[in-house]
Amino acid sequence: MAEEKEKLTIVVFSGDLDRALAAFILATTGASMGMEVSMFFTFWGLNIIKKNEGGIKSKGLMRKMLNFMNRGGSKRLKLSKFNMFGLGTWMMKKLMKEVNYPSIDDFISMAHQMGVKLIACTTTCGIMGLNDDAFRSEVESLAGAAYFLGQAREARVALFI
Amino acid sequence: MAEEKEKLTIVVFSGDLDRALAAFILATTGASMGMEVSMFFTFWGLNIIKKNEGGIKSKGLMRKMLNFMNRGGSKRLKLSKFNMFGLGTWMMKKLMKEVNYPSIDDFISMAHQMGVKLIACTTTCGIMGLNDDAFRSEVESLAGAAYFLGQAREARVALFI
Amino acid sequence: MAEEKEKLTIVVFSGDLDRALAAFILATTGASMGMEVSMFFTFWGLNIIKKNEGGIKSKGLMRKMLNFMNRGGSKRLKLSKFNMFGLGTWMMKKLMKEVNYPSIDDFISMAHQMGVKLIACTTTCGIMGLNDDAFRSEVESLAGAAYFLGQAREARVALFI
Repeated sequence: MAEEKEKLTIVVFSGDLDRALAAFILATTGASMGMEVSMFFTFWGLNIIKKNEGGIKSKGLMRKMLNFMNRGGSKRLKLSKFNMFGLGTWMMKKLMKEVNYPSIDDFISMAHQMGVKLIACTTTCGIMGLNDDAFRSEVESLAGAAYFLGQAREARVALFI
Repeated sequence: MAEEKEKLTIVVFSGDLDRALAAFILATTGASMGMEVSMFFTFWGLNIIKKNEGGIKSKGLMRKMLNFMNRGGSKRLKLSKFNMFGLGTWMMKKLMKEVNYPSIDDFISMAHQMGVKLIACTTTCGIMGLNDDAFRSEVESLAGAAYFLGQAREARVALFI
Repeated sequence: MAEEKEKLTIVVFSGDLDRALAAFILATTGASMGMEVSMFFTFWGLNIIKKNEGGIKSKGLMRKMLNFMNRGGSKRLKLSKFNMFGLGTWMMKKLMKEVNYPSIDDFISMAHQMGVKLIACTTTCGIMGLNDDAFRSEVESLAGAAYFLGQAREARVALFI
């Protein structure tokens, strides 16, 4: 125990901009404190780590529709409140920039460089018809709930966001 | 410690279909990994474990109204996003069926058979005027926040969903 | 370990009335069970601990707008569901009163008297242009994510609400 790094593992279920920020602030802060951090993206959280450019390929009309409506990508995330057809989200991003606060894109690169593991949930990928093509290069791998629980069992701190 | 089972305990606060799925995936996966799992349903989460059939009996006009609007039952849960007057929820259920994914009803039976304890929060029941009549047979008991914290203290992993 | 108090630490991200209630029920129950409890308010959760009276002073048009729309204060919190332009929230408060359930104001005083530490997140305060003037007297201090993770590492139970 004394030699191993303490672990922090976070399930990122939500795809809201605000919750994504909270998740990355905790993840990067944990890494900077010397913790071993993993982030497990599931359901709407997958939107955060989808590629911004290009379309999402998926089979079947319904999955195509779902992935069109639920396009995702770090630049398309919205606030969970006060989105107001994009105005609130735009304002929040402006305010963050004013105080030199990192964007989600910055946070993803930072986290990756700090050794935070970004993992996409296989189960949700299966339901939504996504494969690893849909995700950015920083995403390390796809894994299931058993993988997350395996991490969480050994973790000092496990959170569901 | 070595002989005891590791514990996983989950507060299920949300009554959204997507969050309910996440909770049951984690609970059943935990049980299959040999963990002792308890799920503590509170607030909107109570909707997940309400009986699907019959009405909810409660006293007083406001509680009657609340339990009419907030009817609940595993078959009435909606997605937290893209519900679109039921279309999104219907699509998600279809997609889950296509990949042979269990429904919430399946998950409740599975969890129960795997020994996952389903517990309803007494406090919320008191406010909403619900008694154990309102819940399905798989629900083991009603208990309060102290019970949950007692479990969480001893748990390897405790999550709030 | 045997002599130290077990710790419970809660990130309160949400500013919804229902989630705020859940957080305070857990915090006060934990304290009554002899745990050392801290609550770390961030993002919309800051609304819970803002002063009810007076305006929020902040610089710049956008921050003024944000703090006007997102006024906060324990008396202005709304249910995450069934708010129905205030009717649902009003009903819930009535139902709580009927069963002699504490209000958020009561919970904040109780928590404070029981030694629960209430902490506001510096990062969100920076983005939203809030300083400690904005918060009620029960709030002990402002601190960042590193402080929370420091607490969480030592905590028996850490939750994100």
